Amino acid sequence: MRSILAVVAICTGAPAVLADPLPSWTEGDAKAAIITFVEAVTEAGGEGFVPARDRIAVFDNDGTLWSEQPVYFQALYALEALRAKAEADPSILSSDVLKAANAGDMAGVMAGGMEGLLEVVNASHANVSVEEFQADVHSFLTTAEHPTSGRLYAEMTYQPMLELLRYLRDEEFTTYIVSGGGIDFIRAISDEAYGIPPWQVVGSEGKSSYALSDSGTGVVMKDGGMSFVDDKEGKPVGIMRHIGQRPIFAAGNSDGDFAMVDWTMAGEGPRFGMLIHHTDEAREFAYDREGHVGVLDRGLSEGPARGWTIVDMAQDWQRVWADGQ
Amino acid sequence: MRSILAVVAICTGAPAVLADPLPSWTEGDAKAAIITFVEAVTEAGGEGFVPARDRIAVFDNDGTLWSEQPVYFQALYALEALRAKAEADPSILSSDVLKAANAGDMAGVMAGGMEGLLEVVNASHANVSVEEFQADVHSFLTTAEHPTSGRLYAEMTYQPMLELLRYLRDEEFTTYIVSGGGIDFIRAISDEAYGIPPWQVVGSEGKSSYALSDSGTGVVMKDGGMSFVDDKEGKPVGIMRHIGQRPIFAAGNSDGDFAMVDWTMAGEGPRFGMLIHHTDEAREFAYDREGHVGVLDRGLSEGPARGWTIVDMAQDWQRVWADGQ
Repeated sequence: MRSILAVVAICTGAPAVLADPLPSWTEGDAKAAIITFVEAVTEAGGEGFVPARDRIAVFDNDGTLWSEQPVYFQALYALEALRAKAEADPSILSSDVLKAANAGDMAGVMAGGMEGLLEVVNASHANVSVEEFQADVHSFLTTAEHPTSGRLYAEMTYQPMLELLRYLRDEEFTTYIVSGGGIDFIRAISDEAYGIPPWQVVGSEGKSSYALSDSGTGVVMKDGGMSFVDDKEGKPVGIMRHIGQRPIFAAGNSDGDFAMVDWTMAGEGPRFGMLIHHTDEAREFAYDREGHVGVLDRGLSEGPARGWTIVDMAQDWQRVWADGQ
Repeated sequence: MRSILAVVAICTGAPAVLADPLPSWTEGDAKAAIITFVEAVTEAGGEGFVPARDRIAVFDNDGTLWSEQPVYFQALYALEALRAKAEADPSILSSDVLKAANAGDMAGVMAGGMEGLLEVVNASHANVSVEEFQADVHSFLTTAEHPTSGRLYAEMTYQPMLELLRYLRDEEFTTYIVSGGGIDFIRAISDEAYGIPPWQVVGSEGKSSYALSDSGTGVVMKDGGMSFVDDKEGKPVGIMRHIGQRPIFAAGNSDGDFAMVDWTMAGEGPRFGMLIHHTDEAREFAYDREGHVGVLDRGLSEGPARGWTIVDMAQDWQRVWADGQ
């Protein structure tokens, strides 16, 4: 969009007039803060100018780009996959967390926290190639219905955040997902849902290895078990592994994003940190300081004094979903 | 370059005539094979067309983009750093490999193979932030002299490969380094030396963690010890972690690249696999089936029958170095 306009401007000399980049955001402090920041870092010759190369923006996924209630979508997928697998081979239910998952006991699964969930995910997706796994995930996300909204999972992305991703990319930012969820899971849908290709997705990683099929064709297999948890203090570590430098923009919604936002803000020059506060029970969900999923406590208490922007979903978003309210 | 030409072409209607993209390559089979492949995958409407999004090219680093003799440059850097550290604290010499390294006994170090070398690298660079480490590496590569050539390390990149990287990028490929060397080490120089930014570097990884300084500023620290070895069968695994899909072009120079090239070639549609054969003792080094560094045995025997292009450095390269012969 921007490059087409730029070519038109070069050829005709006409100024390129851009429409409101964030039409689903209510006019208010949050929207104004985003636009002020983007204009500052993109103004050539300006005091806050940041070269396009360094305009790195990172986004949490669950609860930041799409919903995460009543539990992470990956957990709901994993439960379905685990049950199918355990029916064929009950011996895979080798821990209390896995037994709880197979019995549909979500409280029992969540007692293990994020790592418990990831255990379910990994057990349910061992001994499959990355490509086969992703084809199965893609099918689930685009055909199964969310338990409370009745929408397809792939349709539960937030319209205001899609606009923000596009706005930043139009202004020559590179947008990354940095999620506690599984990297292979998110990559199955990230390009289609967000316009974010697989190499701009950072996430938790399961063990994997290279294997040759009977015909001698190489393939990368998911072996089960975790090799890296990209949550909390793991997020800056994951970013340094995959991106190799500190971002200038970070958005999250829970205390699992605290370290990522704090680390981003600690760099020199202009920085933007954002936490989405789920305040909208009517259109989405309302939750913050307590619960098993997406707890936002420390960030809510300390974020404002640290200069982070807190987005009030009920007030700051005129619409939530891409296809309606 | 390409985009500027494209704008000129749009505005004036003039055709964009491109010069020989590989001037340092001798006219011959290798150069012809590269150009034929690139033209096939970039010809809109052609049978072999590959969208720009999927034009992923991966390059080994040591021995493929710059020299690796008499031993990997990272090892030479690590020896220097280890000695400085051991002088202050001899207790860090906790294994035979580390003791050999400190004594300057390269044969003793190489007895441990790539993993032995990486042990030296990690021991010598623990308890330092990624940024501090990279500043030190950058200083070494741009000021210290290579033991036999007398050149600066950063000047020991291969001119024909720099041309190939640029040619591919001009044709909308994305070029990645996929190295057995340390990811943080390579990133210290990759953009300057090759035009490859840190997020397009895949390599072996040391353990790292997030820490807060006394002033509360977050930083990612190198903790010592390996978490991932990106060599041999690890290369396809590293590519799937970082890039998330199979490349269409792979270049290497040793059997450490065999799995990467084999896996790349096994995908559907047009593929290009290349191995550089170090045949040029006069201008660089001559070595292949035997030794401690960059052994090329299986690839030399099996590569041609698999359709891989073997580059004979003495014959196929008119010049080796960016600044001269």
